[in-house]
Amino acid sequence: MWLNGREQSMKSERLQSVIAQIKRICRKRKMDCDQLEEKLQWKLHICSENNFPTAAGLASSAAGYACLVYAMSKLYGVDGDISKIARQGSGSACRSLYGGFVLWNKGESVDGEDSRAEQIAPETHWPDLRILILVVSDQTKHTGSTVGMQTSVETSELLQQRIQTVPDRVEQMKQAILKKDFHTFAEITMKESNQLHAVCLDTYPPVSYLTDISHHIIQLVHAINQDNGSNMVAYSFDAGPNAFLFVQEKDVPIVSRVLCHFYPSSDPHFLRGLPMPEKTDYQVDYTTFSELKVIPKALKFIIHTKPGPEPSVKESCCELLASDGFPKVNSNDDKQS
Amino acid sequence: MWLNGREQSMKSERLQSVIAQIKRICRKRKMDCDQLEEKLQWKLHICSENNFPTAAGLASSAAGYACLVYAMSKLYGVDGDISKIARQGSGSACRSLYGGFVLWNKGESVDGEDSRAEQIAPETHWPDLRILILVVSDQTKHTGSTVGMQTSVETSELLQQRIQTVPDRVEQMKQAILKKDFHTFAEITMKESNQLHAVCLDTYPPVSYLTDISHHIIQLVHAINQDNGSNMVAYSFDAGPNAFLFVQEKDVPIVSRVLCHFYPSSDPHFLRGLPMPEKTDYQVDYTTFSELKVIPKALKFIIHTKPGPEPSVKESCCELLASDGFPKVNSNDDKQS
Repeated sequence: MWLNGREQSMKSERLQSVIAQIKRICRKRKMDCDQLEEKLQWKLHICSENNFPTAAGLASSAAGYACLVYAMSKLYGVDGDISKIARQGSGSACRSLYGGFVLWNKGESVDGEDSRAEQIAPETHWPDLRILILVVSDQTKHTGSTVGMQTSVETSELLQQRIQTVPDRVEQMKQAILKKDFHTFAEITMKESNQLHAVCLDTYPPVSYLTDISHHIIQLVHAINQDNGSNMVAYSFDAGPNAFLFVQEKDVPIVSRVLCHFYPSSDPHFLRGLPMPEKTDYQVDYTTFSELKVIPKALKFIIHTKPGPEPSVKESCCELLASDGFPKVNSNDDKQS
Repeated sequence: MWLNGREQSMKSERLQSVIAQIKRICRKRKMDCDQLEEKLQWKLHICSENNFPTAAGLASSAAGYACLVYAMSKLYGVDGDISKIARQGSGSACRSLYGGFVLWNKGESVDGEDSRAEQIAPETHWPDLRILILVVSDQTKHTGSTVGMQTSVETSELLQQRIQTVPDRVEQMKQAILKKDFHTFAEITMKESNQLHAVCLDTYPPVSYLTDISHHIIQLVHAINQDNGSNMVAYSFDAGPNAFLFVQEKDVPIVSRVLCHFYPSSDPHFLRGLPMPEKTDYQVDYTTFSELKVIPKALKFIIHTKPGPEPSVKESCCELLASDGFPKVNSNDDKQS
């Protein structure tokens, strides 16, 4: 296996378990697949490339496992629900098997059989929703999200309250998405992020993913929203310091202008992903943000993106492996992001 | 009024309310005090000096209001419970009217009449308990603790769980203090601090007092304790980034050595307060702290202190006002800490 051009160990227990499970399902269902028995004997070469940073709290393992499970299911001709298998690789990978807005149901059964992902709305439902991923420069080492969550379950008293709170919030969030009610969507998103990180802090020993820069982004977002009179932007933080900002397409120019003011960068590729509208008629009155300092080089770069579709098999021109079964681009040394 | 040599406005509503209440109690009780009526007509000159930083989350307002209320009660000859008055100035000032280990009871009555402080043990009870106050260099502006707490009460859902949790913890803490059980005392102290700041983060908009340096101190303390096999040191954070570390006297040399390793400073007055034992036979194996970076100048200084006695009237040689009623040292310009 190669990940971003670098050869990887296949020894990971989770990786082995995911591969074994897909093969097992094949055998069990006696799939009507061409040369199934032969295929099951094949040795696999797996090549994976991210266009975003790995292991930085940007859900790269969710994307990776969703992609792997999807690709293997296509190879072996496995139909039906593969989200349970993906979930074994990385919990949130089950969500990444669907496009658009996806809910991961906790389920009721003890063996987790009914803990599955479900699409609330496809990505076409809210076409003007945009995401700005703020990749923070100082990626200090942090607790992995799986280990962190297990410790939280064992030690956080506040988690008991959160368990009571979440079902209502999920329902409110579903409605906000279906109604495309940005203000409410933004408020729930921010409160959810804050509460998740509050529980991390209540864990013993405490787990902290947010840095001074993360907190600066939080303050900036609240300042923008207060200045605007309603929510123009929302933040969410996963198991790392990077921010996911949600914005409506019409507000991307003003929000990106404010971000570039507070986090100036000399990198010509500072803004990546979808094109940023180059509007010059937005005037921002920075006196309303007087409490906030400008922090040069706080961010490595910003990725401009939007909710995407489910995994799909790409055209053959996009294959990552050459005909000899080895990566087309083998950049062990210099292609690390 | 002068605070640390600088003339202050007396317009603060809380300050005026505290002064008015003491005078009212005097009149109501018809205190048998020499020249009471004359004294009540006096104009007051108040001079206050701190030996620690003001408005940095080090409970300077609690100390200040406790001192003011105590001094005025002596002036007017008010006996009995003055903690209720002190509490109006700064909630935790009611605790500062007693020495040693003090519990602030929340009380049950709606008007807060029975929300009073109570001494659990005098400072002589645990004579080898020491406190290291780590004053962090970057004192970024933060939300005042009173405003922050009010917003938490209004918006934090997790606070509901904390309200359930606190009474048990208070009882456990009381027992740990009475038994001088340092390991348990340390664990409850750290969990309490973490939970308080978790609730701050669950507030909307979130309130954050801890900085990257605070979190580094937290990680360092857990690393020391893990290395030691039981709790050698505990942290607690108030409404600011500074850490209060609790240590037993015998462990001060090793803990201060580790602190000076991770937070090196060239300030000859870096270690202040009680003398630091200069033991050279402690060898610390820093390889066990391999995940933690050394951060020069992270701390402004460290104050070495211990639980103190209640307020007292000092000898006349220590008066802060000269015979003309003005501060002996009037250092408006250069005496700010």
